[in-house]
Amino acid sequence: MPADLPPPGRPALLGQNQYGKAETRVVRVTREGRTHHIRDLSVSVALSGDLDDTHYAGRNAAVLPTDTAKNTVFAFAKEYGIDSAEQFGILLARHFVTATRTVRRARVRIEEYAWDRIGPAAGGTAAGEPARHSFVRRGDAVRTAQISYDGDGWEVLGGLKHLTVLNSTDSEFHGFLKDRYTTLREAYDRVLATEISAWWRHRGTLGGPTPGEPDHPAAEGAAPDDRDWDACWHRARSSLLDAFATTYSHSLQQTLYQMGARVLADCPGIEEIRLSLPNKHHFPVDLTPFGLTNDNEVYFAADRPYGLIEATVLRPGAAARIPADLTNLP
Amino acid sequence: MPADLPPPGRPALLGQNQYGKAETRVVRVTREGRTHHIRDLSVSVALSGDLDDTHYAGRNAAVLPTDTAKNTVFAFAKEYGIDSAEQFGILLARHFVTATRTVRRARVRIEEYAWDRIGPAAGGTAAGEPARHSFVRRGDAVRTAQISYDGDGWEVLGGLKHLTVLNSTDSEFHGFLKDRYTTLREAYDRVLATEISAWWRHRGTLGGPTPGEPDHPAAEGAAPDDRDWDACWHRARSSLLDAFATTYSHSLQQTLYQMGARVLADCPGIEEIRLSLPNKHHFPVDLTPFGLTNDNEVYFAADRPYGLIEATVLRPGAAARIPADLTNLP
Amino acid sequence: MPADLPPPGRPALLGQNQYGKAETRVVRVTREGRTHHIRDLSVSVALSGDLDDTHYAGRNAAVLPTDTAKNTVFAFAKEYGIDSAEQFGILLARHFVTATRTVRRARVRIEEYAWDRIGPAAGGTAAGEPARHSFVRRGDAVRTAQISYDGDGWEVLGGLKHLTVLNSTDSEFHGFLKDRYTTLREAYDRVLATEISAWWRHRGTLGGPTPGEPDHPAAEGAAPDDRDWDACWHRARSSLLDAFATTYSHSLQQTLYQMGARVLADCPGIEEIRLSLPNKHHFPVDLTPFGLTNDNEVYFAADRPYGLIEATVLRPGAAARIPADLTNLP
Amino acid sequence: MPADLPPPGRPALLGQNQYGKAETRVVRVTREGRTHHIRDLSVSVALSGDLDDTHYAGRNAAVLPTDTAKNTVFAFAKEYGIDSAEQFGILLARHFVTATRTVRRARVRIEEYAWDRIGPAAGGTAAGEPARHSFVRRGDAVRTAQISYDGDGWEVLGGLKHLTVLNSTDSEFHGFLKDRYTTLREAYDRVLATEISAWWRHRGTLGGPTPGEPDHPAAEGAAPDDRDWDACWHRARSSLLDAFATTYSHSLQQTLYQMGARVLADCPGIEEIRLSLPNKHHFPVDLTPFGLTNDNEVYFAADRPYGLIEATVLRPGAAARIPADLTNLP
Repeated sequence: MPADLPPPGRPALLGQNQYGKAETRVVRVTREGRTHHIRDLSVSVALSGDLDDTHYAGRNAAVLPTDTAKNTVFAFAKEYGIDSAEQFGILLARHFVTATRTVRRARVRIEEYAWDRIGPAAGGTAAGEPARHSFVRRGDAVRTAQISYDGDGWEVLGGLKHLTVLNSTDSEFHGFLKDRYTTLREAYDRVLATEISAWWRHRGTLGGPTPGEPDHPAAEGAAPDDRDWDACWHRARSSLLDAFATTYSHSLQQTLYQMGARVLADCPGIEEIRLSLPNKHHFPVDLTPFGLTNDNEVYFAADRPYGLIEATVLRPGAAARIPADLTNLP
Repeated sequence: MPADLPPPGRPALLGQNQYGKAETRVVRVTREGRTHHIRDLSVSVALSGDLDDTHYAGRNAAVLPTDTAKNTVFAFAKEYGIDSAEQFGILLARHFVTATRTVRRARVRIEEYAWDRIGPAAGGTAAGEPARHSFVRRGDAVRTAQISYDGDGWEVLGGLKHLTVLNSTDSEFHGFLKDRYTTLREAYDRVLATEISAWWRHRGTLGGPTPGEPDHPAAEGAAPDDRDWDACWHRARSSLLDAFATTYSHSLQQTLYQMGARVLADCPGIEEIRLSLPNKHHFPVDLTPFGLTNDNEVYFAADRPYGLIEATVLRPGAAARIPADLTNLP
Repeated sequence: MPADLPPPGRPALLGQNQYGKAETRVVRVTREGRTHHIRDLSVSVALSGDLDDTHYAGRNAAVLPTDTAKNTVFAFAKEYGIDSAEQFGILLARHFVTATRTVRRARVRIEEYAWDRIGPAAGGTAAGEPARHSFVRRGDAVRTAQISYDGDGWEVLGGLKHLTVLNSTDSEFHGFLKDRYTTLREAYDRVLATEISAWWRHRGTLGGPTPGEPDHPAAEGAAPDDRDWDACWHRARSSLLDAFATTYSHSLQQTLYQMGARVLADCPGIEEIRLSLPNKHHFPVDLTPFGLTNDNEVYFAADRPYGLIEATVLRPGAAARIPADLTNLP
Repeated sequence: MPADLPPPGRPALLGQNQYGKAETRVVRVTREGRTHHIRDLSVSVALSGDLDDTHYAGRNAAVLPTDTAKNTVFAFAKEYGIDSAEQFGILLARHFVTATRTVRRARVRIEEYAWDRIGPAAGGTAAGEPARHSFVRRGDAVRTAQISYDGDGWEVLGGLKHLTVLNSTDSEFHGFLKDRYTTLREAYDRVLATEISAWWRHRGTLGGPTPGEPDHPAAEGAAPDDRDWDACWHRARSSLLDAFATTYSHSLQQTLYQMGARVLADCPGIEEIRLSLPNKHHFPVDLTPFGLTNDNEVYFAADRPYGLIEATVLRPGAAARIPADLTNLP
């Protein structure tokens, strides 16, 4: 759609814009006697609203400083605690839109880093009981969330990144299209590995009413209902792993679809999921020059280039709202 | 928009999808006698088309392997050379859409790394003449391009990232909105620094006909006219630097707008520009505990959190087509 | 010590030198019926020997190509399997020194990436049995090893990096030295967090005979005895975690010493350990401007600068052979 | 050498140790009227001394906090300015050793990031004059320095990293040793590319008196004479580039030696240089499957594995003091 005209004396028009504080690193400790709990987040706030004046003329009367966004993150961590990344993002997004007259829309992106208690399960401490205030950072995935609110409706996305998986068999790739530049040989037993990036969209949010749920609270601008965001995230992660492990694969596309469909099947609160799966190629090494046979035992793990497979999987009837260009950046 | 129904027996629906080979690292050497020229690219190809069968059923008859995309990049570098990132991307995008029956849309993303000849200007070689086949990699910016083609229309984006700039004065920030979480002090003379990420969209492409140019070639699906892409890129980069250096800043938003407007003013072939400017905070250090006065001389360069200012600037009448979530990733 | 004279006509003298192939990424799959096992390594080989001629004169008769080092890594993975990083490094180091007449010393550095089976413990698969050929990469630490052999003696180092730990209490820091630049306040209850990097040296290797073991095999140039390298590594990792968790800390230096001493106490085969512990500062946020009290609940996790505490801990009588400048790079 | 016995009741002995603040990011602005100058450093301080008590017992009376080291960096930037990385490091190292009774040795490592004025030469501003307070970060190399002082003698190292260079011809590699794992083909015209990391040691410092200069000031513990550190660094950088560009190469080892020898020839104040040169492989792509001939025109720039060539080059009579394991980390 063509945009409006710029103000008199201005040669160019301001389009969509947003600003905020990115990557505020907040750690919240909660104590139950000697037993401590921690949540470790990186919170990025992006605000939109009545910002023409600062762009065109450098007048800042409508600009809440990004420094204030940072302070708010810390203050809310104290005042409300951090139940989950999603819940914390909902509190923040609502605050900025309702408490700041010039803010029309807030988007809060969060990364969460998981910590395990040091104890037998984490490979530490000989005795039975895990330490009550000692933690080791789990490194297998970063949890992500994005909460958007514009005063009318909500959109809550969950997700993850850096979850790397590998099947050492039960993967084939053949029967593909060939042209004059095709040299790839068909594979009947290959390693399939990928580093999962995913965004999923929760029901009852900006995506619009779900069939059979026409009057969900978001329609009135209320916050999404308090669901168990943590349980949902762990269920989705588990479904992704499980579908990856149990799908006999004829292509990474097929595996992707199965992973997405499994999340929708297992998580009734999720409407849509977007997956970005780099094909982390493991090439069998040609050992014949050394008089050796490589019976799918020795692989070279390549860095670049890599295949990149991306797709959205939707619950029938749901809208496709997650952008095709999935990004996990602030 | 709600999507269609999934095929019988499938629980979930496939939405937007694309696949290809990311980050093929191609270096092209051209010789004029003893004088060599190099272009150094990372090319990422994403294809969309008739891919339901591979996602739903693992049947790959419509899938051109990503390995073939890689081979094509190398073969085209030989057959056609690399005149510019944009021109090379146009050749590739047209090829995939026109030569592969199952491909409906191709998007080619390119990063280009610049090399200077080793010589006096680069700080090497004492004598006058720069080396004819020796190069030092310039590190001050990565050039980016994105070319999309769907058989009907083109979209050509240029851009850059990692261009870091700093003004040590002529920057203020005050008169801003305050709430109970605001502690920031007003600044009347501050350091302003940012790492520029930009995408700009060229005229006469997918964005639709420009006013006064209703029948431009793209309307017929032909390739964009051969403009001087290199000159355009250098002009845009120079305009960004110049506008940053010469704008007396009252906010980074204001500086952003001036940078975008300057590119539109200087580059008639550009319709729209999207800028993402992290505010690389340089905080004056409080030296009073040591009996010293810091008269804007000593700064702490902070990492995180950081302000993040993002906006689109448009030529009046132009469409806003660059996604708000600017990404420079494959 | 002053070095020798350069050869006639050469203005400068060649000193210590080494060369090889760095970061060969080899993945080895072993099959027990349908149950697969994987080892995932990055192997870096550095060779020293009769290399004056290639440096001074570009004559390569003594240079085994680095490409051959890469090939050897892959071939050995097939021929001998990968029992452990340490054992694989021993095989490679001995090979280069004994099979290549011009190589006098080989140093093999290895990173190993751990994978868990996808299953209930990893948060995947609903049912009881973990997948037999499906894996999820564990991200909590990278295992390292360095094996050196010069034909006479061995040195085997084990180690790890990127193991991040945090205590939310039981840490103090006070009573320190103060000068005119000191503004730090004393802390009686602080968060203590670090990302552990460690190298430890195994007994019976280049470090010389252990007391009471004067004629160990290494003295004759034989390979180190086959110990259970995997068990040793896991024991050391567990000891580090356990000591970190159970030490009431008055300084990170004190905690470091306790961690090192614990490894020596728990692992009789280890003579010496070098630890590099960045103090990942978690600063309590001042919430008083917002009318809130921060009772050690809300922390800002800072990036830079950071404290960096490094030390060697030794078994009495052992030599200190691990360089003070610990590096985990190729 | 076997170390001493641990104190009574301690199971293990403390060896070499050091601590300090790493990566303090200080930017210093100097004004000459409207013309500004900036120096942009990352400073890492490591102190050694009487630290047994804090390691063994958690008593901190001898520990100057790392926070104080940070403060000192900022205060010194104000009090003394930053003439050069080397000079600033000398000031800091002397301060810590002479002003703190418990510190016996200080090592200061510095990274410096270069900025160009925005102006015609940097591709910005149309008019003739470069901006007086606007800068664009140059990205082609990071300058490094390491200053060590123990009260008796000094060691001053300069260096650089991330300087990437490429020759598109005049490089061969053949006549090498072959074994059963060798498959590399001989190359008579190849691309040679590397990313230079270098440390060089200045004369008249801890390395001991230079021949003919037996009574240089360092012998008395005085600071190194004030030489023109900036000029020396630029001379060394230029010599590295020039030698790389003008050496007809038969191996990267030969090129390395020529680069090191050139620095010694051009910079009389440098005694010794250590170079670490990854061979950034550019493999010619086999285009014959596509009916094309690759006459050294199209290359694949590989990531891993890579050759890694490391060596010291010395002025005759000089001592070899730079560790073989060159590191540029804090």
